[in-house]
This record gives sequence, C-alpha cells and structure tokens, in this order.
Amino acid sequence: MSSLVQTRATLVLLWVWPLLHTSSSPGYSCALQYIMLHLLGYKLTMDDLKAFRQVDSRTPGHPEYHHTDGIEVTTGPLGQGFANAVGLAIAQTHMAAVYNKEDISPISNHTYVFLGDGCLMEGVASEAASLAGHLQLGSLIAIYDDNHISIDGDTACAFTENVEQRFLSYGWHVLHVDHGDTDLEAIHNAIEEGQKEKNKPTIIRLRTIIGYGSKQQGTHGVHGSPLKADDIEQLKTRFGFDPKQKYVVPDEVRNAYAAVAQRGAALEQEWEQLLGKYCQKYPNEHAELSRRIKGDLPEGWESKLPVYKPTDAAVASRKLSETVLTALTPVLPDLMGGSADLTGSNLTKVPKSVDFQPESTGLGSYKGIYIRYGVREHGMGAIMNGLAAYGGIIPFGGTFLNFVSYAAGAVRLSALSGHQVIWVATHDSIGLGEDGPTHQPVETAAHFRATPNLHFWRPADGNETSAAYLVALKARTTPSIIALSRQNLPQLENSTIEHAAKGGYVVHEVEGEHLTIVSTGSEVGIAVEAAGILEKEGCKVRVVSLPCWRVFDAQPEEYKLSVLRSGAPILSVEAYATYGWERYSHEQFGLSAWGASGPYQKVYEKFGLTGKNIAVVGKKVVDFYKKKGGEIVSPLIKAL
Amino acid sequence: MSSLVQTRATLVLLWVWPLLHTSSSPGYSCALQYIMLHLLGYKLTMDDLKAFRQVDSRTPGHPEYHHTDGIEVTTGPLGQGFANAVGLAIAQTHMAAVYNKEDISPISNHTYVFLGDGCLMEGVASEAASLAGHLQLGSLIAIYDDNHISIDGDTACAFTENVEQRFLSYGWHVLHVDHGDTDLEAIHNAIEEGQKEKNKPTIIRLRTIIGYGSKQQGTHGVHGSPLKADDIEQLKTRFGFDPKQKYVVPDEVRNAYAAVAQRGAALEQEWEQLLGKYCQKYPNEHAELSRRIKGDLPEGWESKLPVYKPTDAAVASRKLSETVLTALTPVLPDLMGGSADLTGSNLTKVPKSVDFQPESTGLGSYKGIYIRYGVREHGMGAIMNGLAAYGGIIPFGGTFLNFVSYAAGAVRLSALSGHQVIWVATHDSIGLGEDGPTHQPVETAAHFRATPNLHFWRPADGNETSAAYLVALKARTTPSIIALSRQNLPQLENSTIEHAAKGGYVVHEVEGEHLTIVSTGSEVGIAVEAAGILEKEGCKVRVVSLPCWRVFDAQPEEYKLSVLRSGAPILSVEAYATYGWERYSHEQFGLSAWGASGPYQKVYEKFGLTGKNIAVVGKKVVDFYKKKGGEIVSPLIKAL
Ligand SMILES: [Ca+2]
Ligand SMILES: [Ca+2]
Repeated sequence: MSSLVQTRATLVLLWVWPLLHTSSSPGYSCALQYIMLHLLGYKLTMDDLKAFRQVDSRTPGHPEYHHTDGIEVTTGPLGQGFANAVGLAIAQTHMAAVYNKEDISPISNHTYVFLGDGCLMEGVASEAASLAGHLQLGSLIAIYDDNHISIDGDTACAFTENVEQRFLSYGWHVLHVDHGDTDLEAIHNAIEEGQKEKNKPTIIRLRTIIGYGSKQQGTHGVHGSPLKADDIEQLKTRFGFDPKQKYVVPDEVRNAYAAVAQRGAALEQEWEQLLGKYCQKYPNEHAELSRRIKGDLPEGWESKLPVYKPTDAAVASRKLSETVLTALTPVLPDLMGGSADLTGSNLTKVPKSVDFQPESTGLGSYKGIYIRYGVREHGMGAIMNGLAAYGGIIPFGGTFLNFVSYAAGAVRLSALSGHQVIWVATHDSIGLGEDGPTHQPVETAAHFRATPNLHFWRPADGNETSAAYLVALKARTTPSIIALSRQNLPQLENSTIEHAAKGGYVVHEVEGEHLTIVSTGSEVGIAVEAAGILEKEGCKVRVVSLPCWRVFDAQPEEYKLSVLRSGAPILSVEAYATYGWERYSHEQFGLSAWGASGPYQKVYEKFGLTGKNIAVVGKKVVDFYKKKGGEIVSPLIKAL
Repeated sequence: MSSLVQTRATLVLLWVWPLLHTSSSPGYSCALQYIMLHLLGYKLTMDDLKAFRQVDSRTPGHPEYHHTDGIEVTTGPLGQGFANAVGLAIAQTHMAAVYNKEDISPISNHTYVFLGDGCLMEGVASEAASLAGHLQLGSLIAIYDDNHISIDGDTACAFTENVEQRFLSYGWHVLHVDHGDTDLEAIHNAIEEGQKEKNKPTIIRLRTIIGYGSKQQGTHGVHGSPLKADDIEQLKTRFGFDPKQKYVVPDEVRNAYAAVAQRGAALEQEWEQLLGKYCQKYPNEHAELSRRIKGDLPEGWESKLPVYKPTDAAVASRKLSETVLTALTPVLPDLMGGSADLTGSNLTKVPKSVDFQPESTGLGSYKGIYIRYGVREHGMGAIMNGLAAYGGIIPFGGTFLNFVSYAAGAVRLSALSGHQVIWVATHDSIGLGEDGPTHQPVETAAHFRATPNLHFWRPADGNETSAAYLVALKARTTPSIIALSRQNLPQLENSTIEHAAKGGYVVHEVEGEHLTIVSTGSEVGIAVEAAGILEKEGCKVRVVSLPCWRVFDAQPEEYKLSVLRSGAPILSVEAYATYGWERYSHEQFGLSAWGASGPYQKVYEKFGLTGKNIAVVGKKVVDFYKKKGGEIVSPLIKAL
C-alpha cells in the first residue's frame, strides 16, 4: 500500500482515535498505536501484541517504518515525528499542486501528528514549526497532548513557555480543548476547524491528564513504567471491562472498529475510482504520478548523467554536483531540493527552478521544487525524511558537511528507516580554507561511514560525482551523503561512472608496485601527483580511489582483493582523522587534530597534504616494509 | 585573566560597541570583533589584523577561544554563541548566589550576546531561549541584529516568524530599536532598560540595514563577500576617513578607545579592591572562589573515588556513576550537573542536591547545583560550554548515549575550544533492551572516538567508572563522554583505578597466549567468560580492557605494546559497529547493522554477544592464524 493511501487511512484512524486516546507521549504511545492497527485490520495479530518489545516481534519498543504494517514513519527520538509530519505535509501540498486538476483532485489528504511536551522542547521541532508556519501548510494538523508531565516530573521544572503564543508567533492556527480526556465533542470540533483552515497549519492543545483513570493519574509515575496489577484491575472495572481478563477485545469494541475499517476501505475504494477517472482524463499525469508513487525511476534517466574526459578542466565537485542536478531535473520530477540557507555555496538550486513557496509570498508556488529551509539543518533532515516517506519524492538538501552533524538525529533515522534522502554536503574538508576549524570537518566521515545503511560518498572528480548520484538515486531505501569540495579538482585518468559506482577502483595501475595509495575526494589528485614523483625515483605506485566504503564493501570478494591487493604496503591519504582507514590500508596519513584557517593551498601545505610530502611519506612506508620483511597481505584478508 | 574578569571587560566593550557596530551576522562579524580588541588594548597588533584568515595567524576566519586574547567562546557555527551566553548567565547567576554577600558582591556581571537571523533559526537557540526564560536569567542581554538578510537573501524567503512574540512566549523581556544603525541613544537606553530588569532575560531587537553605508546596503551581496574597491572608497569618504589609506586608525579614534580601555582598567582595579575586601571578611569563601576561578581542584578529592573488589556485587555502570557523583559532590562544589529530562534514568542527581531554579518556582534556588535542562540535548551541550567557559564550574549533563548525537554541534565545539564538559551518557548500547534500535547507539562511539581532544570512555566496572571520572576531572581542557550501561556489570579481576586511568590495560593475563580479546564496557565481562570457556579447551586467552582509546594512545609506546602485544592474534569484541577497531586488533566482532528491541539478554544472544559464542568466534580466529602461519605482529607496530 502506498504512503499516499496510508495517510488517507490515518485520517480514518484519526476519527476513532479520540475514543481511546487517554494520554501518553509519542513514541511511548506505541502500544496504543499497535492496538489501534490491530483493531483496524492491519497485519498485526493478537500474538504480535503479546510479543510487545520482544526480540524479532512486529511490535518493537518504538514503532519502525518498513517493519510494521501501518507505521508511516519511525519515531521515538523526540521531535522527529513532528518534523516528519511537516515533511509529509509539504509533500502533499506539492504533489497536490502538481497533479490535482480543477475537476479531479486525487491528492487531498491531511497530515495529523500527535506530540507531547518533550517533542516541543526539542530544537528540531522548533525549526520545523517555524518553517511550517512560513510555508502556510494548511493540510497539517498537530495535536498537542498537554499533560504537564515529562519524564523528570511536572513540566513546571523546565518547560513553562506559552506554547500557544509560540505557535502564534510562527504563524500557526492555534486551538485548544480544556478537557482533552473526556470532551470528545470539543476534540471533534477542533479537528474540523483545523481542516477548514487552508492557509495555516493548525495546532490543537489538548489539556489532558496523564494515565487518566489510573490511581496514579496526573503523575510521571505512569510515564515509563507499567501500572500495578491492582491499578489495572480498578481501571478495567471503572471503564466497564472484566478486570480478570487480559488480551481480550469485547465484540462490541471489535465491531465498532470493524465498522471504522470498513468505512476506511470504502473511502479507499472511492479514491481508487477517483484515480481511475483521473487516469482516463489525464493519462500522462496519471502515468507519471503512478510511477512516482510506485517508486520507479523513469527510463533512460542515467543517460543524462554528465561524463568527463581526463583532459577536461578541473572543477570543484560542488560545481560538478550542480551540473548533475541541472542535467537530471528535467527528466526526474521526483527531485525536490533545498538548502539550509547556503544555496549559493551548496549550488543546490538548478537555474530557473521555482521556489516551493505559498503564492502569497510572491516568491514561488507550491509547484516549485526548491525549498528554502533557512538555517535549520536538523529540521531539514527530519523534513526530508517526511518527504521521502510520503512517496513520489526524492529529497536532497544542502549544507556544509560539517553541519550535517547538526542533523545527526535525523540522518540516523533516515538510515534506520530506509528513507532515500540525499545530502549535498559541500565544503567537505580543510579545502574550504578561510572559514577555519569551526567549519572544517575532521571526524564527520568516521561518524557517517560507521552508520549502517548510509552511503557516505566523497567523489574525486566529475565522473565520480556522477557515479555518486547514480548510486544514490538507485538506492531507494538508503540515504546518501555526498561530500563535495569547494576547491577545483582535476579529472582523473581512469575514472569512469562505471568504475566509481563500485565504490572503489584503481585510478592509476602499475604492475609490480612498491606501494598502493588509497584515497578519496580532493586527495586522490594529490596521491596521483605523489605517485608521479615516486615513479621518477624508481618507486612504482598504484593509486586507488575509494569514494564510498559501504558500496565498495558490497562488491564481490575477488574484485575487492584486486583493488586492494596483497604484495605491497597500502597507504591511505585523506584530509580527515585517519580513524577507520586501518580496514583498507596498512598505514594511514591524515589530520591528527583540527584544521586551520587560511587560503586552502596553505592549509594543505601546513598539514603535509601535498604531492611532494605524500611522496616522502610513501617512501618512508616502502622502506619500513622492506626492512621489516615478510609477506605483505591485503588488509581485506581476514578470519571474520 | 579569568573569564569572570573578561565578562566584566566585555561590559566595558559593550558601552562603545554601538559606536562602531554597523551590521553583520555573528561569526562573520569577527573582523569587527578583532578590530575592537585591538583598539581596546588586547594582545592583537595591527599585523595580526592584516593576517586576517591566514594560516597560523591570531585572527582565524571564526574566533576561537584559547587562541585569541579576549575571545570568550568559539563561535561561527550558528546558534552556539547564543546558547553559550545562556550558560555564561547561568554560571554568573549561580556563582553570585553562592558567593555574593549582603555587603560585598564580587560577582555582578551581565552577559551580552549579539545574534542574527541565522542564530534564531537554529533549534539549539530555541532550546536555550526557552530554558533561559524559564530560569528567569535577569543578567542576560541579547541584542538581535534584525537586518532582514541571511545568506540566501531576504529573510522573507524562509524566516517570517514574529521573533518578539516568540521571545515573549518564552518569558523574556522584549525591547526593540527601530533605527539600529543610527539611533545610538535608543540603543543605549534599551541596554540600560535590560540591565534594570532583574527577573527576565532581555532581548533587544535592533532593526538594522546590512552593510550600512555601502552601495549595496540592505542586500545579501555584503554578507559573505568583501566590498568592491570603489565602494570602500565612497564608504570611507562618507564617514570622514581618507579613502586612500588602509590599516590606519586616526589618533582621534585611538584615543577614544584608549579612554574606554582605561575606564575598563579602572573598573577592573575597583573589582580587585572589592575582591580584596571580600578576602578579608570572608576568607574561606574567597579561598574557594579563587581556587575555582584559577581552575585548580581541591586537594585530596581523588581519595573520595569509590574503589571496588572483584567480589563486590555486579552493578550497572550508570549506578556506579551515581555513586561517584554522590561521593564527589561534597568535596567538589565546582560540579554542576543536570539531565535532558532523564534524571531517573541517567542517575545524575545526587540525593538531597538542590535544583538550580528561581526561588519563585518553589522548586529550588540559584544556589542549587542541578539543572533541569528539559528535553534539550543540543541546548544542554552548548549551555555546558558556556558554564565551562565562565570558569569555576565543571558541568556534567545526562542523556542516553544515542542522544548525545543530537548535540553533536556543541560537543564538537567543546573539543575544539577545550571546554571541560562531562557527558553522563547512559543506556550505552543494545544493553538498554526494549527501547530498541531507535535508542541503541551503533555508530556513536566511532563518531566521538574520531573527534580530536574528546575522551570517549566506556568503563567496564566500578573501578573503571571511577577512573573515567578521575581522568575526566583532571582533564581541564578536554571534554569527556562517559558511556554507561543500563544493565548490571560484574567487578573485574585485575581492574583498578590506576590501571583503567591509562585508557587500557590487561584484565586477564596469561603467558604464551593463543589469543588476546580486547573489549570495552559491558562486553569485557563477556570476553572474560569466553576466555574461561576457551581455557578449558586448552586455548590460552588474554583479555584487555580499552575504556578510552585516546587516553591509551597517549601512553608510552612500551606500555601500549605490552598491552596489545605481538605473538598472537587480537580479536576485538564490542556491541557497536566494528569501525575503527582495526587499529587495535587483527579481527573484529560487533554489530553489522542496527540493534533490536527485546529483553537485553535476548538481544545479546541474537547478535552472538555471549561468552559461549565469543569462544566459538575466538577459536575460529586462532585456527585461521594457525593455518595462515607467519609472524603475528601487534597492530600498533607501524611505519607512521
Ligand atoms: Ca507530556
Ligand atoms: Ca541577518
């Protein structure tokens, strides 16, 4: 079932939600979420519910996208779900603007999100909320469970801001319900009012009592730990259930939910019919929309990727990235870009592309494919997860590589949830020069290379940049970070899209080598220079480029061993902490600490990252292993 | 000069700042900051100014603490400086509450911070602002340069919230000046008004024009790039300078600033006299305050560290951490703790300690040493940097290890700036069990181990936990992250504070070993178990604990080679991505992807992290190297 349809199902679910919703903060409310999904006929059995928080169950401690039927985004880490919802609402608004017609509007869902005090305290939610207000996302309805309790106890201890006033300041439509545990009519009316407001996102503050009905209601005692047996008994009795029975759904309840599920099914059928009409009248749009929802890429798009010859001019890889995006945008309407206020530096905006903006701003339209995220990296990351989860959109977002770390919480969830999100991470090293160590990543590559299901790319030239996009766009359930240089990089000898798409390959081959240098990005050219110097001294040097470790790791053993072969020492060279390079090399050269502020060539010189110095280092390595004697085995040959 | 005095000097600086301040966003305004410091007699010469953004100059592209005289915190990464200021103001408020007397108040500075649109968009600033309002920090004055421009152009494209209303919602005192470029009187009055408000932080919105006086004023053209030559000429002419002269300070200006510096010096002298009186009347308080400002620790504090015997009970290391904090708090008034809304889980609050809260809340007092940060990890990290920068305070803050990543931007600046900040990072692995993969760190250790000047500790038992605190508290210019278990851990055979304080040591020694297992934290006990199983099978196994790589790396070569010695294969075992372990081992065992939700023993079993399975893996390694033949050399023996 596509996410487009799923969000519609959520709407249906929402109509009955208030009947059961007592209280609980998001993430922790997942037991309730699982129960609702079970009652509404999703693929969750009573046995699944009994296996709650057990190994390999369908009901883990926090709900995971792609793992449990009906779960639309992975939440738990606070603030993420709210920002995901802003992304879902942007996606809906954009897809509606592009595909809805005056007579047929197949895309008309609202996005609903439940949030608690913890979510509101997180900066990522503030960032997303401010942007949602600016973007006037009328289809977004947030329901704030205002129970005055977080894990540390009464919110009076740390969270006393005026939430309603804060959301008014962001330009939201703000409502509240005083008795959120019992006043179902008021909740119903507030949701309806939210649905009517078309030009602002709505937040409904529900004043609730945590653990409503329990003996401990209104205290943080009911937040993380289960209720005591006698409390559960009195609670069941109070709400008319048999206190002795467990895991039982009375027929009355099951029937009521079955009716809701039926209503949902009917709505889904109605929607399918609408889509059928749309298909007849607008076959081209329908075909494209269907392809996008299905997650297929259009045929032949790869042929648009720019290709370079070694004789082509040296170009900064951020500029090469812009050339890729410019070439692909006309054939890939799925691409929705943006930047965290660094558009001119990240080069993420394709010439003549339109901003995604409310018409009223005069700055663009909802049909636009370029999002001005503002200086909100974490918000951008979590919003991109929402865009990807909606379906039909491949989001990319720009910032300096160093500031992708601000979004670490969202990047992790992209990888865990399998959201295809692409980070255009420019200014990827000390090569950014003057901005200095506060902006020069050193540890960042280690962080992202160690993250499962995340492709960290650091292309060395034009073909490698095209390869990074090729693999990133084909990897429909894997996010990618493409680290790009500010400075110009030469086009390499043996670099092709096909080679680089393997994650690693030989850039400069010789037989009977004394040394192999393995490198990435801007340092590959320096390694080639060092190889040239050493060759003049009679020292034969191979050079390997390893733009994406994780993609290289997935190649056949034989290929990997042909690239990083036994017989001579392998030296890694990269303008980062050397951490992790021991996996692919015998010796490592990199930065021992922070970078420095200055013109980039001077900074490279300061740290010995020049062809001349790498030649000296390489010689030292060759001499050491000659003296040491014994067989030199590829670091890839291992017992485990 | 201590930070306490420096902040006082900043106050003096502030009195003249508006005379020169035209516009510019923080970080990027550092040229102006350097010029001001030069004019006011700090250690910055005209030659230093000329070397702006050059390698090894005192004037890097963004100002760095500990690098340039007069720079109080490293800024540039947006939002950090603002949150640092909240930390500085908390520090001042706390130190004043503790040390000021009715008749003598040596601690009375205000904290001033300049911020721009970019800072306000960042979530970290939202988090800090909300907390500052809650804490009623009357000594904090923020001046917001509202120039309607960020790097992407007019703020209309992404930042249209009502900032004044937002800060009112946080409980701030909100003022504005309409003509921030010219109306010096209004600026002066607003600052005075801010100083008078004692129960709320103040924000003054200065409506300014970016690049005021330039031909391009009011456009983002003046944001990142220098003015053209003819524009500089007309600008100099317009403000009465000789357009042909460069790097010249007219005598009139130099004298005016000299007078300001003199006034500052006089104020400093006055303060020294005040301190002298304080010393006479309150010698004990003065001695303690002086020690704290100087950055010394009280004598004999180390003797309070808890010590354990192998026969002591198994205890969770988060609990061991609580025991350390409980033992040290009475002798180390410098400790100021807190948690991001996980107090009961992080065990960061020492019994009977008082909350740092405004008296009016009835929840504590400004003398209190425990900060309720709320669910604001990034804000907490940046605030702790401010607390450390103020002097006299060693901040520690708790959250789950996985969510330290939310604060990556601040953690990086702790390390770069040399702020002694301690993260109490509990729930450090799949050992947290039921909360599942959204909460189980996998890549986090790699990230922080790769960060320069950051100690990532993962203690295995009681003595190792004490050692982690010992080293962390002695490392006055290095931040530490102490990763702590939720589950109980046995006390190890050969573990002592002295051993563990070396970052790595032999937990279980045998001669003529077939295998060494190196591990950290909760897996060391599992490694010892595996060693026991293998020994019964005639396979001799040493076990090494490596709680802090960076501290181990700093030991003498000879010691390191005695711990990770040649002669037998070394196998690493850790419940994380194996990334990076190749530096210390020949073979690696860990998690290949994400964790899982379930009772922790079941999760450990699922991933083969049991004594029994590690014994099987160890046997495989031994057999592989036996078959392979040849010398087995320690991975520490290298050319580079
Ligand atoms: Ca709550
Ligand atoms: Ca601005």
